Amino acid sequence: MTNSMLTLRGLLAGTSMLAISVLGITAAAAQDRDTGTLPIAVQMYTLRDSGTLDDQLAAVQAAGVTAVETVGMQDTDAETLKAALDKHGIAAISTHAQLADLRDNLDAVIAFNKAIGNTVLVVPFLKPEMRPTDAAGWAALGAELKTISDKVKAEGMTLAYHNHDFEMAQFDGRSALEIMMEAAGPDVLTELDLAWVARGGFDPAEYLGRFGDRVFAIHTKDNAPAGEAVDEKGFKALGEGTLDWATILPAAEDAGVDWYIIEHDQPLDAPAVVKTGAVFLTENLPEGATR
Amino acid sequence: MTNSMLTLRGLLAGTSMLAISVLGITAAAAQDRDTGTLPIAVQMYTLRDSGTLDDQLAAVQAAGVTAVETVGMQDTDAETLKAALDKHGIAAISTHAQLADLRDNLDAVIAFNKAIGNTVLVVPFLKPEMRPTDAAGWAALGAELKTISDKVKAEGMTLAYHNHDFEMAQFDGRSALEIMMEAAGPDVLTELDLAWVARGGFDPAEYLGRFGDRVFAIHTKDNAPAGEAVDEKGFKALGEGTLDWATILPAAEDAGVDWYIIEHDQPLDAPAVVKTGAVFLTENLPEGATR
Repeated sequence: MTNSMLTLRGLLAGTSMLAISVLGITAAAAQDRDTGTLPIAVQMYTLRDSGTLDDQLAAVQAAGVTAVETVGMQDTDAETLKAALDKHGIAAISTHAQLADLRDNLDAVIAFNKAIGNTVLVVPFLKPEMRPTDAAGWAALGAELKTISDKVKAEGMTLAYHNHDFEMAQFDGRSALEIMMEAAGPDVLTELDLAWVARGGFDPAEYLGRFGDRVFAIHTKDNAPAGEAVDEKGFKALGEGTLDWATILPAAEDAGVDWYIIEHDQPLDAPAVVKTGAVFLTENLPEGATR
Repeated sequence: MTNSMLTLRGLLAGTSMLAISVLGITAAAAQDRDTGTLPIAVQMYTLRDSGTLDDQLAAVQAAGVTAVETVGMQDTDAETLKAALDKHGIAAISTHAQLADLRDNLDAVIAFNKAIGNTVLVVPFLKPEMRPTDAAGWAALGAELKTISDKVKAEGMTLAYHNHDFEMAQFDGRSALEIMMEAAGPDVLTELDLAWVARGGFDPAEYLGRFGDRVFAIHTKDNAPAGEAVDEKGFKALGEGTLDWATILPAAEDAGVDWYIIEHDQPLDAPAVVKTGAVFLTENLPEGATR
């Protein structure tokens, strides 16, 4: 018995068998896959109410996942965070860094992330008062991201941008995100949250094709059918909602997505959501999906 | 000297003369207009941090405005609210009533508003967890509004819906608001917040024409140019921002809008914003605009 079989069997034993193979990967092939060697990560925001940092990383480890996207500095120092990651065999592959911090404390953000071994900085969210109100404003924000990206790139790092629904506003037929990304130039990548893309009225698989090879990652979470999961902001664990992953995952792979990042904005049982997502991705990631 | 001249001269003396006549109403004609007899109202949310209820209504009165849209029960009882309105010569012409209250406490909402003389109930906002995530969900919400509207109409009252940006999400080329309104049927009206419509990527004047005679009111506030007014959520007082009121106001009048309601989501100086809005509307409302 290989380690990879152990890993997946362990996961399957501990979950509700909701993961269905939608992409034609045979059960035998899926059983040979090791979650921890696939391009699967967890956004730590999902686990923010699941105990201490150590508890949260233990939940990631228990799901067989070996990569995370951090939230800022995770309320600790780089040394502590790095030690906790190492303890659980987890790598930091990106971080959500607020635009205000990139504007005002870029050197500190870069230093912190170098210290934990992460090279990708992602703008996660714009507060309402920071959101552009027209196409010119979105282009201006893109131009600013380019300026930040130039500094980030000089340090061997990459800047990306994570969307919600408000970047799906359309100006003359183009979404705000597209306008911003064009102005930002090719070095700035996207991290597409496909549940929010769908809420914004776009087809996720089609939409992610609009960014060429600039999709660093997709956030993989699911929307509940109308009226369900109202106590979880209408989100579902991956594969349990309305998104058509059988179409999305191959499209993402075609786009050269580097990471599939499990997230849920308001889960009632975050460790279970992480585990369900890990099983689903392990079963359903296209065969070419590698780190 | 007529009362109406007194009113406008008083306003002009107390404001910064930023209101510019964009619609060709002559200064002489504008001077004959009495703000208090025009279809101008103030959304009380604008003044929520401007002292007591009495202080807030005094600010409305000082701007020459004689109508308000209330926020729920204004944290008081109907008798107290009615007395305060009467003291300042102000009528309640609509109220923002949360969907949860319409669902669970409709009889109480109706009774309260009858007691203050108001006949229009407006759904103001959907919390993120209450927002539909696809076209079917928006249609289902519209159908629910119809059910509520039927009860409201039986009491001689009217139900309307106020938008933000998230209802501008497009599904197969139609905005969520249009999908919802179609499902809600002709008795349910819109209260279009045009600054949010613009942020959602639509041309306000064109967009309001999509709802036929179903536009109860427009919320009149303005968007700041990109990067400005970040401490005021990017909003400006009416006429000081980027919206093209010279096109919007005639389009609104053509659509048969009943009320022009001054609002600002986060004003640093709310009474000044109300006064600027009142002067601007008094100077620029099309000649046919009447109560």
